Amino acid sequence: MNKFAMYGKLTALPGKRDELVGILLEAADILQSNANCDLYIVNVSDDYPDTVWVTELWKDQEAHAASLADTKVLELLQRGRPLIAGGEPLQLRPVGGKGL
Amino acid sequence: MNKFAMYGKLTALPGKRDELVGILLEAADILQSNANCDLYIVNVSDDYPDTVWVTELWKDQEAHAASLADTKVLELLQRGRPLIAGGEPLQLRPVGGKGL
Repeated sequence: MNKFAMYGKLTALPGKRDELVGILLEAADILQSNANCDLYIVNVSDDYPDTVWVTELWKDQEAHAASLADTKVLELLQRGRPLIAGGEPLQLRPVGGKGL
Repeated sequence: MNKFAMYGKLTALPGKRDELVGILLEAADILQSNANCDLYIVNVSDDYPDTVWVTELWKDQEAHAASLADTKVLELLQRGRPLIAGGEPLQLRPVGGKGL
C-alpha cells in the first residue's frame, strides 16, 4: 500500500477563512483532472472560525509532490499564502478501509 | 451540503496500535454495506507509533450517530476500548472539493 494521505490544517488570518476556502476549492477543481489525486476535500468547523482542513489522498507521496509543481497550483498557492497565519500538515499512511 | 466528516485520532496503549488497527479495519468491513458512509479510512504515521487516525465521511451527522448503534459496531467498540489510551475526534463540515 503506497497511498499517501494528509490532513492539511491551515489557520487563516482573522476574517480570511472563506477567501482561503475559495482558493482551495479552485485547487480542488484543478485536481479533478489529476488521476493520481483521489481526495482533496475542503473542510471547516464552526468551532474554529479561522481554520480550514484539507483531506488529501494520493496514489503515492511522489504524486503529491509533483502536484505542487503544477503552474496553476503554484499560482493558487501564491494567492493563498498572504491569507495564511499558519499551517500544520499531518502526513499519514493509509492501511485500509472504505473508500481507499 | 449536509455531509459530515471526522478525523478520529486514537492513541493506543503502548504496543497495541496494530491490534487496534485490525479492529478498526473490521469496522470498515462492516461499513462497506452502509450506503450512508462514504469514507472510513484507517491511517497510521511512522512518526507516531501509538496513534491511529480514521478519516470518516458520512451522508450527514445522523447517519454517523446511527452507525454507532449497530450491534456489530458496538461489539467492535467494546473489543477496542481496552486498547485505547485516548481519543480526539475532530468533527468537520465539508464545503466542497474532489471526492466529496
